Amino acid sequence: MVTLNCDMGESYGNWRFGDDAGIMPHIDCANIACGFHASDPWTMLKTVRLALSHGKQVGAHPSLPDREGFGRREMKLQPEELTAAFLYQIGALKGILAAEGGRLSHVKPHGIIYGMAAHDMDTARAIAAAVKPFGVPLFGMAGTCHETAAVELGVAFVGEFFPDLTYAPGGSLIIPRVQSAIDLTLAEHRMMGALTRRELVAVDGTVRPVDFDTVCIHSDPPNARDVAALMRRIIDTHSKSLP
Amino acid sequence: MVTLNCDMGESYGNWRFGDDAGIMPHIDCANIACGFHASDPWTMLKTVRLALSHGKQVGAHPSLPDREGFGRREMKLQPEELTAAFLYQIGALKGILAAEGGRLSHVKPHGIIYGMAAHDMDTARAIAAAVKPFGVPLFGMAGTCHETAAVELGVAFVGEFFPDLTYAPGGSLIIPRVQSAIDLTLAEHRMMGALTRRELVAVDGTVRPVDFDTVCIHSDPPNARDVAALMRRIIDTHSKSLP
Amino acid sequence: MVTLNCDMGESYGNWRFGDDAGIMPHIDCANIACGFHASDPWTMLKTVRLALSHGKQVGAHPSLPDREGFGRREMKLQPEELTAAFLYQIGALKGILAAEGGRLSHVKPHGIIYGMAAHDMDTARAIAAAVKPFGVPLFGMAGTCHETAAVELGVAFVGEFFPDLTYAPGGSLIIPRVQSAIDLTLAEHRMMGALTRRELVAVDGTVRPVDFDTVCIHSDPPNARDVAALMRRIIDTHSKSLP
Amino acid sequence: MVTLNCDMGESYGNWRFGDDAGIMPHIDCANIACGFHASDPWTMLKTVRLALSHGKQVGAHPSLPDREGFGRREMKLQPEELTAAFLYQIGALKGILAAEGGRLSHVKPHGIIYGMAAHDMDTARAIAAAVKPFGVPLFGMAGTCHETAAVELGVAFVGEFFPDLTYAPGGSLIIPRVQSAIDLTLAEHRMMGALTRRELVAVDGTVRPVDFDTVCIHSDPPNARDVAALMRRIIDTHSKSLP
Repeated sequence: MVTLNCDMGESYGNWRFGDDAGIMPHIDCANIACGFHASDPWTMLKTVRLALSHGKQVGAHPSLPDREGFGRREMKLQPEELTAAFLYQIGALKGILAAEGGRLSHVKPHGIIYGMAAHDMDTARAIAAAVKPFGVPLFGMAGTCHETAAVELGVAFVGEFFPDLTYAPGGSLIIPRVQSAIDLTLAEHRMMGALTRRELVAVDGTVRPVDFDTVCIHSDPPNARDVAALMRRIIDTHSKSLP
Repeated sequence: MVTLNCDMGESYGNWRFGDDAGIMPHIDCANIACGFHASDPWTMLKTVRLALSHGKQVGAHPSLPDREGFGRREMKLQPEELTAAFLYQIGALKGILAAEGGRLSHVKPHGIIYGMAAHDMDTARAIAAAVKPFGVPLFGMAGTCHETAAVELGVAFVGEFFPDLTYAPGGSLIIPRVQSAIDLTLAEHRMMGALTRRELVAVDGTVRPVDFDTVCIHSDPPNARDVAALMRRIIDTHSKSLP
Repeated sequence: MVTLNCDMGESYGNWRFGDDAGIMPHIDCANIACGFHASDPWTMLKTVRLALSHGKQVGAHPSLPDREGFGRREMKLQPEELTAAFLYQIGALKGILAAEGGRLSHVKPHGIIYGMAAHDMDTARAIAAAVKPFGVPLFGMAGTCHETAAVELGVAFVGEFFPDLTYAPGGSLIIPRVQSAIDLTLAEHRMMGALTRRELVAVDGTVRPVDFDTVCIHSDPPNARDVAALMRRIIDTHSKSLP
Repeated sequence: MVTLNCDMGESYGNWRFGDDAGIMPHIDCANIACGFHASDPWTMLKTVRLALSHGKQVGAHPSLPDREGFGRREMKLQPEELTAAFLYQIGALKGILAAEGGRLSHVKPHGIIYGMAAHDMDTARAIAAAVKPFGVPLFGMAGTCHETAAVELGVAFVGEFFPDLTYAPGGSLIIPRVQSAIDLTLAEHRMMGALTRRELVAVDGTVRPVDFDTVCIHSDPPNARDVAALMRRIIDTHSKSLP
């Protein structure tokens, strides 16, 4: 059964970000920002409460230590430094979950480190090493260093597909600085292709295989809740009947 | 049996602070900074390793979110905001401990929030509420709101005595901005008074009762390791024979 | 001639805040956030460009060093520490202005330090001391320590009136955590009372005198641009004919 | 006449760094950290006072926005974002100088961005663009993009030599994470070679020409003040007699 996950809790202090309340009912897994690219402890507490009140799975969404750049600026950390940064963030979320009676269900890296780790084994291993002590799966892109490192370190791995983003010819994601409204027809088309044929079409028209068990959407497009509702419907309709 | 604890891991990035390596052999419990007033994830990882390699108890040393002020500038947070900040920091340390095979043994608040919580029940409750989910004791000052709040919320409480600081007439601590060398004769005198007569002498000469099960020293005086060795010797010699 | 000023440039990194583009045409003076409670260097550069492209006066809007709390959490700094923090922020904005061919026109403190300085001479002096080297006026509340300290230090002073906020009985401002839409009829009523009778009505119905040469509005209510247009119209219509 | 410059004011909050007081008497130009890799407004104010009280030239020492990494971790900013970050820092220092009656004399980039700009014209131009509005010279490495970009943008350029660092075969600097004591004999040898023959010897023994008008030393080796005194003596003895 394919699940639907979404990056959430990306407000910070006085600044709002994303339609968490509108999306939460539709998803299965909330990837909650951990204070490094977005969020702060109080926002995390409120986001955890929102997710648990809807009975959703809660995962950590750790990042490079770069709030001003929203974790989207490339930064070079030593592998152990990166592992420590991720242990810190995952632990912090788990601490907040403990207070609310919830438990950690998965880890999904945020932003540019997600892309860096897809192509670099040292980065991927540093991340997998930070997930391992928590005994939860790592969400990532199948067939990349994400999966290789997870397997190597004995961390469970769950592959993702992104119906609200465009893929570059090599299979990497193209992340816009500001999200505009998602074309629902196009997103449905992408989702159906991925779900029924396990294929995606890159920006240059190339068809690539895609292996996934979870579908990731984002909270910040203006029509995010519509995207969420659409994906929920598609998954519920088509996912169960698949092998 | 009285234990000896010390605030540790208060370096940050490229900046060094305190003689952790020199002190660690002498103490029982390391209170490790959690990244808000001092430290960063990598420093926390290294400090946890140091403590575990010496077989010491590891506690969290959370603070107000004020690195520039080292957690020593008064700041007003909402109670739930403070609870969330502490859950975050304690959880973060626990995450790093998980990776190193250690476990959280206690929580000891840092800096001005320690003093604020001694006199204000809302602050003290907000802190105790953040300790409760972890099921470990809170270190604080007996007879203050620290203890009252802990008892109220069902959190185990361990009273502290500070032989390397001066007490104000009302019983609160006088914390210098920069630590100079500790007068070992004076510190020994204070420690013996506290240990054998359960008394301390405030800066104005007033004698006050002091109730404690742990002794706290600091890592930053130039002769910190000598203070640590001295307190170790006094505790080992005099503590066991006491009722 | 009364001027219209607005706090602006309060986005931060990836987070948006306030309708700067919609408000800018209507105002005279932009108070631009300086990176401590909001903004970052790139956002400051873009905001300065926006203001200068509309031919507006640009002032600095410095704050306590508290981004997570948006400069609205009380924090105790040493007076010289506060002066340094303000010199830093004002200088930073002036540096960005230099690159864009603009010049600094005034300073208007942000958030809780504005309120703290109204009631405390040490705080007010620390702020006035940071404004003095720049040779520009300080915007503040007439009849409070703001004015007294400015006069004492020889800093030009410009009194403010706030038609989009509620005044407490003692004359201080009530700042909501999240701004809802401003009642335009009420705001017009307040503005007319202040402009024609130099009076304001506090939340308890008390009538108080108000002395001002500039009117401050905020960028974050949903109808901020309508408030701006309304105030512009009232000032243009009624201000010139006044003594 | 060759001058002697030193990176200074790199303490932060409660953390000390470098022997500023011991070095200041020996140098000509203090490069003062601007709060992004090190320092804070109050520390900047104190460092500016120290430099001005010795009658020294004060320059800005801006950096990437990375305090935890001391500006030594590679980070990718957009060129305009980098320019804004440098305008902000230089302006901030100039603001503090204004309060103390000093004036800005130069700009010297800090840490890894110094190395990145040596090899990348976009980075070098972004930095030179931030120096230009202040009308002061940029300190950098002659013959690299530092100089090319400065010349291109019409910014005065002053070449540096580093007698307390090792040069890689390609001419770039090898910066240790922690500075150990400098070998004074070796440093004197390097300095004499650079001063009298305009040559340096890279780590592999290669001899390279070096063009410079200022000599840069660092404040953090344990014997930093001895290095400063030595360089002062060499420059005073040998520099005046040179063509």
